[in-house]
Amino acid sequence: MHALYLDQTLDLREDYPAPVPPCGEALVRVTLAGVCNTDLELVRGYMSFRGVPGHEFVGIVERCDSAPEWTGARVVGEINAACGQCETCRANRPTHCPHRTTLGVAGRDGAFADYLCLPVVNLHRVPDSVLDEAAVFVEPLAAACEITQAVHIKPTDRVAVLGDGKLGLLCAQVLQLTGCDLSAIGRHEESLGILARRGIHTTIAPKDLGDSSGLYDVVVEATGTPEGFAAARQLARPRGTVVLKSTYNGAVEAKLTMVVVDEVTLVGSRCGPFEPALRLLTRKLVDVTPLVRARYRLSDGLAAFERAGQRGALKVLIEP
Amino acid sequence: MHALYLDQTLDLREDYPAPVPPCGEALVRVTLAGVCNTDLELVRGYMSFRGVPGHEFVGIVERCDSAPEWTGARVVGEINAACGQCETCRANRPTHCPHRTTLGVAGRDGAFADYLCLPVVNLHRVPDSVLDEAAVFVEPLAAACEITQAVHIKPTDRVAVLGDGKLGLLCAQVLQLTGCDLSAIGRHEESLGILARRGIHTTIAPKDLGDSSGLYDVVVEATGTPEGFAAARQLARPRGTVVLKSTYNGAVEAKLTMVVVDEVTLVGSRCGPFEPALRLLTRKLVDVTPLVRARYRLSDGLAAFERAGQRGALKVLIEP
Repeated sequence: MHALYLDQTLDLREDYPAPVPPCGEALVRVTLAGVCNTDLELVRGYMSFRGVPGHEFVGIVERCDSAPEWTGARVVGEINAACGQCETCRANRPTHCPHRTTLGVAGRDGAFADYLCLPVVNLHRVPDSVLDEAAVFVEPLAAACEITQAVHIKPTDRVAVLGDGKLGLLCAQVLQLTGCDLSAIGRHEESLGILARRGIHTTIAPKDLGDSSGLYDVVVEATGTPEGFAAARQLARPRGTVVLKSTYNGAVEAKLTMVVVDEVTLVGSRCGPFEPALRLLTRKLVDVTPLVRARYRLSDGLAAFERAGQRGALKVLIEP
Repeated sequence: MHALYLDQTLDLREDYPAPVPPCGEALVRVTLAGVCNTDLELVRGYMSFRGVPGHEFVGIVERCDSAPEWTGARVVGEINAACGQCETCRANRPTHCPHRTTLGVAGRDGAFADYLCLPVVNLHRVPDSVLDEAAVFVEPLAAACEITQAVHIKPTDRVAVLGDGKLGLLCAQVLQLTGCDLSAIGRHEESLGILARRGIHTTIAPKDLGDSSGLYDVVVEATGTPEGFAAARQLARPRGTVVLKSTYNGAVEAKLTMVVVDEVTLVGSRCGPFEPALRLLTRKLVDVTPLVRARYRLSDGLAAFERAGQRGALKVLIEP
């Protein structure tokens, strides 16, 4: 099959072996996949991943011997394949299973290919009313839902989302639904315009955030950059909460003493629940289609990555 | 009056002017004060404080024109003097008032003197059954209570306290009362012995914490050193909580991406509630007396600071 393969550099393979689903897993024919910032970080060396990247997808189950009722279903899939046996899995934290593989990120080939395999327990059926172009956003939209899953956002809270990339735009849309007093702070007028058209207050990030220092009860750091932390920290009030969504290579110099003095809570937040994300899409409470910037064939996958890496590129889709 | 005065170096002043309480404040004659790690950090330049340090004290109200019923009362005092007017104060976060002064830490002379001033609203009467030697620990014990104030510690939680200094020993004693599965990890056999005699499981910190990696639901970082963060982070399980209690000069290199990937919550925690601390002392649910290592006259205050700075020194008291 066709696949993008990462081994320090990313290449197109035309004769990559199609995966064979082990017991309990389904073979999924990918119909559409999305390029995530994490994919760009993987190419830069994050996680030292070797294999087929891609973890945002929608597809059709081609084969599922252990649960044949799934055959033909249009599905999205949770990306962490857990062992189901260990203490972490039994404590209902399968996305943190130490033995897990992660689709297109760690130990498991991903979605930039004609086919992928995932455990049946990871699959979610996509309602007919949700088109492929929307369903392909379920994984990052679930990550946005993880904010409200982990942190109680009150309707009276002042909330800022820092970063107007793909994830920031999804986070802002989900947070708007709480009724909170929301500001989206970014660097790209076009991206912020997507939110402004939905009635979200948007601001081009000033060089100096001093005027907004300590203004927000909750700040979501979704810039994808190490510099985002200090800014998010500055915007949060004493005893406020900073939700950390960015993953990247390398460490950041953090003034933890000021976290103590201001008694700020930092919440690391990653993958989220798929069913709420599917409900939001089904009920059209969020709109992901304006985030799509380009669509490439898998055979042009390298061009897709190049496009996705451009400043303010938003979502690039890859179609096998 | 006598006072220790910090202006880059710490000196004993024999003719320092006694404070005159402004309206709403009480004049307190200090009967006993404690040297905190923060005092040692102040001498090293933390907060650029100039004035009389000292914020752990017990004393007698000598004069209080606005509330004469306090005269003669034996008191301890909350150290943050808030404006009471601003948005932060109105939101019931007076310890974070941006206009606050802090006793012996910022903008207000402290307890290493014959007298100090504090707003009446900051004072708490000390029950007769609580001796001065115990009451002088109310401020740091309140800081330990701030952990359970901010974080829901479940009786089924596995909890580690990292650091066996003064604050670590108080944190461990407070946490033991939750019934949680508690381990105190330190470097000083004598200090840990205080906890072991109370039935707390203690461990001398190994060079390599690998065996305990991810073992704890909650980790309290009370080492007082920048190195403590990485260790605490390592000990916490995915979706666990790290409570940050250490304040020090300088920043720390933090791998925030792993905080995101493991979805860890970091909670900065500082000053806490005095009344619960007084209740714990009154009911003898914690024992602070074994923490006292030495007692100096104020005129020997410089020697007291030297002693407090020695490795594993625990609490040094200063008596005017």
